[in-house]
Amino acid sequence: MIRSIRRNTPSAEGVAVGIGDDCAVLEPTAGHRLLATTDLLLEDVHFRRRYAEPADIGWKSVAVNLSDVAAMGGRPRWALVALACPAETTLAEVEAFYEGARDLAARHAVAIVGGDTTASPAGWLVNVTLLGEVRTPLLRSGARVDDVIAVTGPLGRSAAGLAVLERPSAPEGMTADALAGLTSAHLRPVPRVAEGRWLGEAGGVTAMIDLSDGLATDLAHVAEESDVRCRVDIERIPLDDAARDAAGALGADALAWATSGGEDYELLLTCEPGAFARLAEGLRRATGTSLRAIGVVTGHGAGVRFVDARGQEVSAAGGFEHFVTAGGRRV
Amino acid sequence: MIRSIRRNTPSAEGVAVGIGDDCAVLEPTAGHRLLATTDLLLEDVHFRRRYAEPADIGWKSVAVNLSDVAAMGGRPRWALVALACPAETTLAEVEAFYEGARDLAARHAVAIVGGDTTASPAGWLVNVTLLGEVRTPLLRSGARVDDVIAVTGPLGRSAAGLAVLERPSAPEGMTADALAGLTSAHLRPVPRVAEGRWLGEAGGVTAMIDLSDGLATDLAHVAEESDVRCRVDIERIPLDDAARDAAGALGADALAWATSGGEDYELLLTCEPGAFARLAEGLRRATGTSLRAIGVVTGHGAGVRFVDARGQEVSAAGGFEHFVTAGGRRV
Repeated sequence: MIRSIRRNTPSAEGVAVGIGDDCAVLEPTAGHRLLATTDLLLEDVHFRRRYAEPADIGWKSVAVNLSDVAAMGGRPRWALVALACPAETTLAEVEAFYEGARDLAARHAVAIVGGDTTASPAGWLVNVTLLGEVRTPLLRSGARVDDVIAVTGPLGRSAAGLAVLERPSAPEGMTADALAGLTSAHLRPVPRVAEGRWLGEAGGVTAMIDLSDGLATDLAHVAEESDVRCRVDIERIPLDDAARDAAGALGADALAWATSGGEDYELLLTCEPGAFARLAEGLRRATGTSLRAIGVVTGHGAGVRFVDARGQEVSAAGGFEHFVTAGGRRV
Repeated sequence: MIRSIRRNTPSAEGVAVGIGDDCAVLEPTAGHRLLATTDLLLEDVHFRRRYAEPADIGWKSVAVNLSDVAAMGGRPRWALVALACPAETTLAEVEAFYEGARDLAARHAVAIVGGDTTASPAGWLVNVTLLGEVRTPLLRSGARVDDVIAVTGPLGRSAAGLAVLERPSAPEGMTADALAGLTSAHLRPVPRVAEGRWLGEAGGVTAMIDLSDGLATDLAHVAEESDVRCRVDIERIPLDDAARDAAGALGADALAWATSGGEDYELLLTCEPGAFARLAEGLRRATGTSLRAIGVVTGHGAGVRFVDARGQEVSAAGGFEHFVTAGGRRV
């Protein structure tokens, strides 16, 4: 199995020694800082085997880490992929997992340079560590009073996809295409890597984070780290049409999915008020992605308020909840 | 919990941003290569909670990765620690886990710069990724014909410790001290970090690996990567006295523990024949650790032979077996 993984891992730039020694030996770029992030994905906590294929699990475990590097404005470079799966797992399933991981990694010129495989007494589990590089990272702590708060895309798609997947049957009145778009947003999120790098170099962005736990929770991280208060105008939050349809069909709340669903892996940023128009136009031209202003940094302190069109404060539920009771939170 | 971990993580050299953003931001040393390794430890595969305390699990999960960096001749620098534990785990247990990890990391000036915590539906599991630096790494692939094969210490202690821990009661006729030494070798292995760095810079070492899977398996890796055949003289393998006593008391074979037990985390190396005496003397002076010659690289090809004092070939069982059937093997 290891031979198969090794054979399918092409030699890559910046890799002196890849899989097959005690450590990978990598060649960092002079003058850059190194970015490092790690994420653990567990069966029945972060995904269910009933609907997540091995290739989906491989893809997503790389995607969530790519999103973290994107949120720093960085260039992803090298990944270490550790997998444990039950003894009855077939070699074809393990290969499909690595194929899914490699597929997304290759799209961003990321080399899988190491890992670990072991038997699991209980379900699939994956840990991916991603290393990247950046000259000047965008942190959570740089937001300033009067900054514009913006996101890179429509929210709530992943939560809608999860709701659809968790139901025994598909909601009525939606096209197969629309449903597939939602479930794919959940199973195979597309991290905003090119967008993150462009925003990191554009100037004027003061803080950035990726939306993994949900807008309410992740913006609260920015507010806390930057020591500022934030206001989000809920009618400006971009909602996805298919997510709205799914919410209607399932009796759910598309806005709650958008604010609290998590796992959209869009980028959330603050920028200088005078820079927003330039950033939105430039990002669209460079990547095709729209940047939408959804609020403003209102003052010092900490905390996030959501207000409706009449300026009334509305509550937004907490962020992403794992399936099991105790939940999880990234360090 | 994350606040507690963050508070207890001092700022460290080479760390621009530690725990608390999307990625850690690190400052690699100019002119060095980056080493990266990752290891997954699962309850009831790699350890049992019956005898492994949370602090032991934290220690060992860092130790096995430090050993990989040591085997490259590298300097360990930064760790990412991902932990999943059952919902009923107490905050004190989680803190004890991190304390164990931090304790060993701090002894080697390694900063814990990130991680992930989540609930586990089934037992404890830990993934540690360790990053290190080195100018010129020692690989598995450099062994040459006529090289001396050597190890840094007595073997079989960890397997003896595991055998003692797995028994319902302690073997008779051994002192508590001797037993504690063996169980500690298994639960809290001491990676040969200073030895690895010294050997990496001494010159004359041609290949190096750490003994995680057992002498038979790990030397076979060197033989395969270097395209050489190896001969080990079994009477020259350094056996531990306490391990020998435990083997006697338990009706086990201390030599089998030494060749196939695994998890000793000593270093196994090949060196130029003329360099051995200088290396052994220098290593002893620099670190207090003995280097013992146990065999020789006999020719091209691949494979490992174990021979007794009369030159007769003897079989050595395969390497480390995990508790569960399918076993595990590092990529």
